[in-house]
Amino acid sequence: MRSMDFRPVFLVNGILLAILALVMCVPAFVDWYTGHKNWQVFAASAGLTLFVGVAMAFASNTGGARLNVRQAFLMTTLAWVLLAIFASIPLRFSDLGLSFTDAFFEAMSGLTTTGSTVITGLDHAPPGVLLWRALLQWVGGIGIIVMAIAILPLLRVGGMQLFRMESSEQGDKALPRAAQIAVVIGVIYLLLTVAWSAAYWFAGMSGFDSVAHAMTTIATGGFSTHDESLGYFDNATIDAIATFGMLMGALPFLLYLKTIQGDWRALSNDSQVQWFLIAVGAGVIVAAGWLWLDDGRSIFDSVRYSAFNVVSIITGTGYATEDYTLWGAFATPLFFFMMFIGGCAGSTTCGIKVFRFQVLYAAARTQMHHLMLPHGIFVPHYNRRPISDEVIVSVLSFFFVFGICYALLALGLGMLGLDFLSAISSAGTAISNVGPALGPIVGPAGNFQSIPDPAKWLLTGGMLLGRLELFTVLVLFTRSFWRG
Amino acid sequence: MRSMDFRPVFLVNGILLAILALVMCVPAFVDWYTGHKNWQVFAASAGLTLFVGVAMAFASNTGGARLNVRQAFLMTTLAWVLLAIFASIPLRFSDLGLSFTDAFFEAMSGLTTTGSTVITGLDHAPPGVLLWRALLQWVGGIGIIVMAIAILPLLRVGGMQLFRMESSEQGDKALPRAAQIAVVIGVIYLLLTVAWSAAYWFAGMSGFDSVAHAMTTIATGGFSTHDESLGYFDNATIDAIATFGMLMGALPFLLYLKTIQGDWRALSNDSQVQWFLIAVGAGVIVAAGWLWLDDGRSIFDSVRYSAFNVVSIITGTGYATEDYTLWGAFATPLFFFMMFIGGCAGSTTCGIKVFRFQVLYAAARTQMHHLMLPHGIFVPHYNRRPISDEVIVSVLSFFFVFGICYALLALGLGMLGLDFLSAISSAGTAISNVGPALGPIVGPAGNFQSIPDPAKWLLTGGMLLGRLELFTVLVLFTRSFWRG
Repeated sequence: MRSMDFRPVFLVNGILLAILALVMCVPAFVDWYTGHKNWQVFAASAGLTLFVGVAMAFASNTGGARLNVRQAFLMTTLAWVLLAIFASIPLRFSDLGLSFTDAFFEAMSGLTTTGSTVITGLDHAPPGVLLWRALLQWVGGIGIIVMAIAILPLLRVGGMQLFRMESSEQGDKALPRAAQIAVVIGVIYLLLTVAWSAAYWFAGMSGFDSVAHAMTTIATGGFSTHDESLGYFDNATIDAIATFGMLMGALPFLLYLKTIQGDWRALSNDSQVQWFLIAVGAGVIVAAGWLWLDDGRSIFDSVRYSAFNVVSIITGTGYATEDYTLWGAFATPLFFFMMFIGGCAGSTTCGIKVFRFQVLYAAARTQMHHLMLPHGIFVPHYNRRPISDEVIVSVLSFFFVFGICYALLALGLGMLGLDFLSAISSAGTAISNVGPALGPIVGPAGNFQSIPDPAKWLLTGGMLLGRLELFTVLVLFTRSFWRG
Repeated sequence: MRSMDFRPVFLVNGILLAILALVMCVPAFVDWYTGHKNWQVFAASAGLTLFVGVAMAFASNTGGARLNVRQAFLMTTLAWVLLAIFASIPLRFSDLGLSFTDAFFEAMSGLTTTGSTVITGLDHAPPGVLLWRALLQWVGGIGIIVMAIAILPLLRVGGMQLFRMESSEQGDKALPRAAQIAVVIGVIYLLLTVAWSAAYWFAGMSGFDSVAHAMTTIATGGFSTHDESLGYFDNATIDAIATFGMLMGALPFLLYLKTIQGDWRALSNDSQVQWFLIAVGAGVIVAAGWLWLDDGRSIFDSVRYSAFNVVSIITGTGYATEDYTLWGAFATPLFFFMMFIGGCAGSTTCGIKVFRFQVLYAAARTQMHHLMLPHGIFVPHYNRRPISDEVIVSVLSFFFVFGICYALLALGLGMLGLDFLSAISSAGTAISNVGPALGPIVGPAGNFQSIPDPAKWLLTGGMLLGRLELFTVLVLFTRSFWRG
């Protein structure tokens, strides 16, 4: 390999920044329209971001050179960091008076669709800021889907090569085809958001709340416009709408496309979707049973609160209608382990993701057969297709690296003074992009305001790592990446 | 495969029971000699165990038939269960008044060298019982070493095929060679125990305490003759002797044999030993630094308490000289994650074990290179030898299954009413065969007496699973194992 040509990396990042600047105009307009002087902050930030973005893009114009693998890794990681930095500017200078640490934490939490927040007093925050937080998650969500469909499979990160599209094998057609698909999926994403806005509105939310929550529901992000999250509305219909919305956001978006193209069984035939729904169902039943038997609630209430909060945690959304850590001794470990599951690949969710558990299970099963018949040949399958050894090792390595990163993150947080429960649950919520952690401080009823600044930076790093499937970031820290 | 011939399985188990009966005569003699009427319990138990063992052996005599793979799995798992059942009999009927659950928990904790206890008032317990607990760990320790050297590599469990001896490839010579090696290693084990008994005695322990602690030190078991564990003696020399003894127990015993045979660099050249000592060193330095800076202790005290307790946890011994969970916020996550590390393969330690981390690290590293150069060929290495794909998948599957079993165990304990910290640390301490968990109830200053009986049974299962490297037990629960 030659030394790296940074121009294509900067070109893409410049374009993305310019897009971010355009998105910033929305809260600027809303704040101006509703008479909040905060609009100036958004307008100025948009101007700055647009200027930097356009300048970067022009300065690095390559006349259509293609990205190689190393450039693609750098481009992806850099994009999330740069976008988070620029997205944090209006938060830093808004009326909320956030420090840069807090603003960057909030921006990264938004763009990665994590949903952890350092802001209290959301109910009285200017609408521009609330909309900006929702927009960050919404933009982050579609960014992740496109990345998971078009980029990660080519980079072969953590077993994502399982989801290479047939056409992507033939180099030339790959990119235009991917671009087309990205546009169609963007439209689906938009339509789902519109549908959920309407549903929320009919169920009684204000127009503003409907749009903001629809965006963070479909993106499985979890930012709310109220400190109490969706618990603020205390409305079973809204809970149900949110529950289904989070599930929609957690399914593979490529399958929606196939469904529209006439393959009506695309979703129901997909083993990842089946496993995901079984996992969710099991979690809901266990938690509801616990609430019913141990907490003495009605069956309806048990199912309502269990379904909402379990779906919120498994999909990594992070809404809450209650402090489920008060549901008794069993709830804490249950919600703790559910944080790591995640949704389907090619959705807006994070975490380990269901297909990896399928591959790991298939590998472990094959392993057992192999133990009994050492000379037999057993091939693990995923979705009725054999899994190559390369994919198995990729997925298994992902699981190991996930474990190590998680442990180091939790240790770091402990070293910075967080108590045990806060440390190990915050590390999990960050790397899985869930949102709230567990316990009185950073749990669903608390937020991340009070933890020390270095801990916030660690968590921001954890969110980025988790969001980019670890390896995309970690390869940048190897010597051979830079030596070429 | 034909349906299984159980006779060789029962033959081996009968012989093992007969050996256990002979070991039971030692506490019987000691109790008789010191005038405790408990000697009758041990004598009766020994008689019963001997009778059952001999009967089983005679009834199943096969005239030297060899074990096949399925029989070896069944024999191994059954041996640990049967020995624990019979070992619990004298505990059940001793003066301590233990229930069968408690007695079985204590016996399994002993034989698996876990070291979790349900007994309080050790300081006033009859000497026979104390000696029996120590003997169980001692016998369990040598049993594990022999199993790890002679059986598991042939069964290819969890990557243990890495440690197949050259000669074991040639079927016929394998067993006699393994038997010879087992005898020599048994002698080394005995000599180490004698040496450590002497050291403890010179440092000021009573003769009885010296022998009991030497047995549980070299076995990295962790049972003590005092409720306060080694903290009872409050003696820096004893702490140092114990620290080195636990490290000796955590190294691969096969390398002691090689050292004796004249290969003086066998230990220092082994990459597993190097990694293990680096991990221990890092843990000791971090914990000592924390104690020195945060707790304001002298450097000597910081190193003394850190070295002892870190080594005790990493090696899965489970002695304590202090309640390290009171060392501040950082200590809890540090000790929590250290529980899972374990020592070297072929030692008395449990946990994930260092060689697996090496294989996992090598696989993850290869994975990263592969991401950057998709068409390059990279081969991970262990101890300067290439690792086969089969070993990588074995080890990675082990790691995944370990994670799943751990999570299910913790969830089960939560469901049975344990608080979060007790649940997730007890699950870890059981599956890694460490001993104490974390927190006020089951931590180093507490014990497992007060937790509900079903939780004790779950933990007993966790100890067995962890001790037999998971797969040895889990294959018995597959349909294809029994269908043949």
